[in-house]
Amino acid sequence: MARNNVLYAQSGGVTPVINATACGVIETARANRGKIGKVFAGKDGIIGVLREELIDTSKERKADIAALRHTPGGAFGSCRYKLKGIEENQREYERLVEVFKAHDIGVFLYNGGGDSSDTAYKVSQISRKMGFPVQCLGVPKTIDNDLPITDNCPGFGSVAKYVAVSIMEASLDVESMASSSTRVFILEVMGRHAGWIAAAGGLAQRQAGDPPHVILFPEVTFDEKAFLAKVDKAVKKHGYCSVVVSEGVRGKDGKFLSDSGVRDAFGHAQLGGVAPVVAGLVKDKLGYKYHWAVSDYLQRSARHVASKTDVDQAYAMGKAAIELAIKGESGVMPVIERVSDDPYKWKSGVAQLSRMANKEKMMPKKFIAKDGMGITAAARRYLAPLIRGEDYPPYDRAGLPKYVRMKGVLAPKKLDPFDV
Amino acid sequence: MARNNVLYAQSGGVTPVINATACGVIETARANRGKIGKVFAGKDGIIGVLREELIDTSKERKADIAALRHTPGGAFGSCRYKLKGIEENQREYERLVEVFKAHDIGVFLYNGGGDSSDTAYKVSQISRKMGFPVQCLGVPKTIDNDLPITDNCPGFGSVAKYVAVSIMEASLDVESMASSSTRVFILEVMGRHAGWIAAAGGLAQRQAGDPPHVILFPEVTFDEKAFLAKVDKAVKKHGYCSVVVSEGVRGKDGKFLSDSGVRDAFGHAQLGGVAPVVAGLVKDKLGYKYHWAVSDYLQRSARHVASKTDVDQAYAMGKAAIELAIKGESGVMPVIERVSDDPYKWKSGVAQLSRMANKEKMMPKKFIAKDGMGITAAARRYLAPLIRGEDYPPYDRAGLPKYVRMKGVLAPKKLDPFDV
Repeated sequence: MARNNVLYAQSGGVTPVINATACGVIETARANRGKIGKVFAGKDGIIGVLREELIDTSKERKADIAALRHTPGGAFGSCRYKLKGIEENQREYERLVEVFKAHDIGVFLYNGGGDSSDTAYKVSQISRKMGFPVQCLGVPKTIDNDLPITDNCPGFGSVAKYVAVSIMEASLDVESMASSSTRVFILEVMGRHAGWIAAAGGLAQRQAGDPPHVILFPEVTFDEKAFLAKVDKAVKKHGYCSVVVSEGVRGKDGKFLSDSGVRDAFGHAQLGGVAPVVAGLVKDKLGYKYHWAVSDYLQRSARHVASKTDVDQAYAMGKAAIELAIKGESGVMPVIERVSDDPYKWKSGVAQLSRMANKEKMMPKKFIAKDGMGITAAARRYLAPLIRGEDYPPYDRAGLPKYVRMKGVLAPKKLDPFDV
Repeated sequence: MARNNVLYAQSGGVTPVINATACGVIETARANRGKIGKVFAGKDGIIGVLREELIDTSKERKADIAALRHTPGGAFGSCRYKLKGIEENQREYERLVEVFKAHDIGVFLYNGGGDSSDTAYKVSQISRKMGFPVQCLGVPKTIDNDLPITDNCPGFGSVAKYVAVSIMEASLDVESMASSSTRVFILEVMGRHAGWIAAAGGLAQRQAGDPPHVILFPEVTFDEKAFLAKVDKAVKKHGYCSVVVSEGVRGKDGKFLSDSGVRDAFGHAQLGGVAPVVAGLVKDKLGYKYHWAVSDYLQRSARHVASKTDVDQAYAMGKAAIELAIKGESGVMPVIERVSDDPYKWKSGVAQLSRMANKEKMMPKKFIAKDGMGITAAARRYLAPLIRGEDYPPYDRAGLPKYVRMKGVLAPKKLDPFDV
């Protein structure tokens, strides 16, 4: 590498382990001084790069960088901001290259999902076209687990573990009081398009009859009659019914169930909250007492119950990205390659960004039970290793996790301001 | 004690640690063979006692009893069933005494909150009146933390820890994306009458400006204008605002905010869910993007993030109940006595059931900040020790907690059936 500074940016929704990837990037870069210079991090992601707000991670203490491994959220900030096509928005791409030039950036690492792969790929092309070629690499991250090629996406395993543990625990609660109290419990989880997270709830079932008894996927059109029949059967057989529902479940009209008429006090359609809609159905049609929970951001930030497999992989992807950069690679993304299911063995591999960009990996049909409301043995084989192992954050004397906050010192600006 | 069998029953909503109390009862009884005979547990609580469905805990393996210490839910089942006054319902009280007689029960331990104290007290009186005196003791339990006299209630500390950790983690998530995404995050927690659980969220604040920025208590009438002003101020100052809201918050009309007009798809008033109501207000009046979570049973069963202080106290209360029984006590409840705040020191004490029954301990005024939307230093001093220490359940190879299930062998019935 001619220029050896690295620019790292987090993109899109954060995860319990995206900072573990940042930790892998920065620690591996620091272990390769001489080959790699400074690591800058875009403040709030790509927006910060455009604004030339670059956090100089060399100003952060070694112990604080190490603590990123166990800190949820996005330590440098992230954003939802998709660069448009080059034709429509050449100015932004050029700006990126100007910022790279000004700060002697030779490597751009974009830590995100499908959109980010696309952006990283485009940036690599335009930087070459502009005569300032930068090595652009993607680094995988998304709780949605919807990237192609990679075995799974860092972030997903920990959310999966949170959901499996939570539905297991809440079901024990419901079961112990069902004879005189709540009969149906509904847990809403994330997943607008793909049902991976909801599927993970199925890992709580260790034997036939275990909760959750019903899982609703965005891939399967909601069938009210079949759903109610299955709930009723579970209540009659087990005394209660435990349900995991994906936020993205749609009815026969193609609309999200969560949009199907819930009005707030002001008469506005209320967004989010498929669980109360499903609960209302249960009450109305079956008359059972119900409770519902919406885990929302809790599931996405619950570092306190992270999967060790996931943390290890998140770190490994950051490390692999720097190692690939040192080898001179560009236009690629490190990925997780599964070697075997059980014992679970995996290694770091490499994929072309052009093959990752803008493709969503949905749940294969063979992972969804015939009745559309559960998971199969094949799904279980795939999902099981991803929640294995515990990796607790350290706690302080007060009984709270010791999460780190970056100093976030910005590198001095060298360019004119730029409006984003 | 003339008759030395014990009957233990769990009552009302379960907690992450009520089984730790059961563990303390059974292990202490087993350590005192000779003084204590068998421990029976009412299946599904007092209902099982009335039905003569008594689980014979001597049939459970030692390791399984030990595992109760880390298993959430109610391992023998619980119920919401309040015995009426003796005048109205003498038949049920008499039935209890008949069951005691048939199974040679000398000690009745009722593990619950205020209602259960009342029941245990009445049972002790009637058993004496009926010439079959049974030692009746209460054992404290309630996540609501609303029992008088005792320093705190087993179950509360773990819920408090769950809420503090969860709002801390979710706030890190929100903060990292606030510049382009969600500005206001709202977490709904339990607490129909008392704001103890919501107050615990305040422990996540380590220094000024830390989240949560707003806490809404059932003790304080909701002031829409003041609330919105505080949210807006936090967003302007910190970039985002993190809110913990108690399910029991009421408006000026005295109605629960959660009942204030949310309608489901069928036009029914939707119960539960103050968070979406508050979120709707934020969107409508301030225009900020929001997210909300309702933790519901998750908070009440999250044994995976229990407080060690709480687990220790829950166990100690079960142990103390048996020790008090051996001493011949009746009409009392073991309680937690605080010796000092920091370092936190406590010991087991004893309270008269007649002083515990049907009294709710609300948050004292001095624990609520002047503006009604935060906690004071005094509250912090009281709450802080209760979430200290971690006490993880063991996990299996699959990455899930090893929660135990009782065999639940019933003692042979000796009486005629009884309709409950």
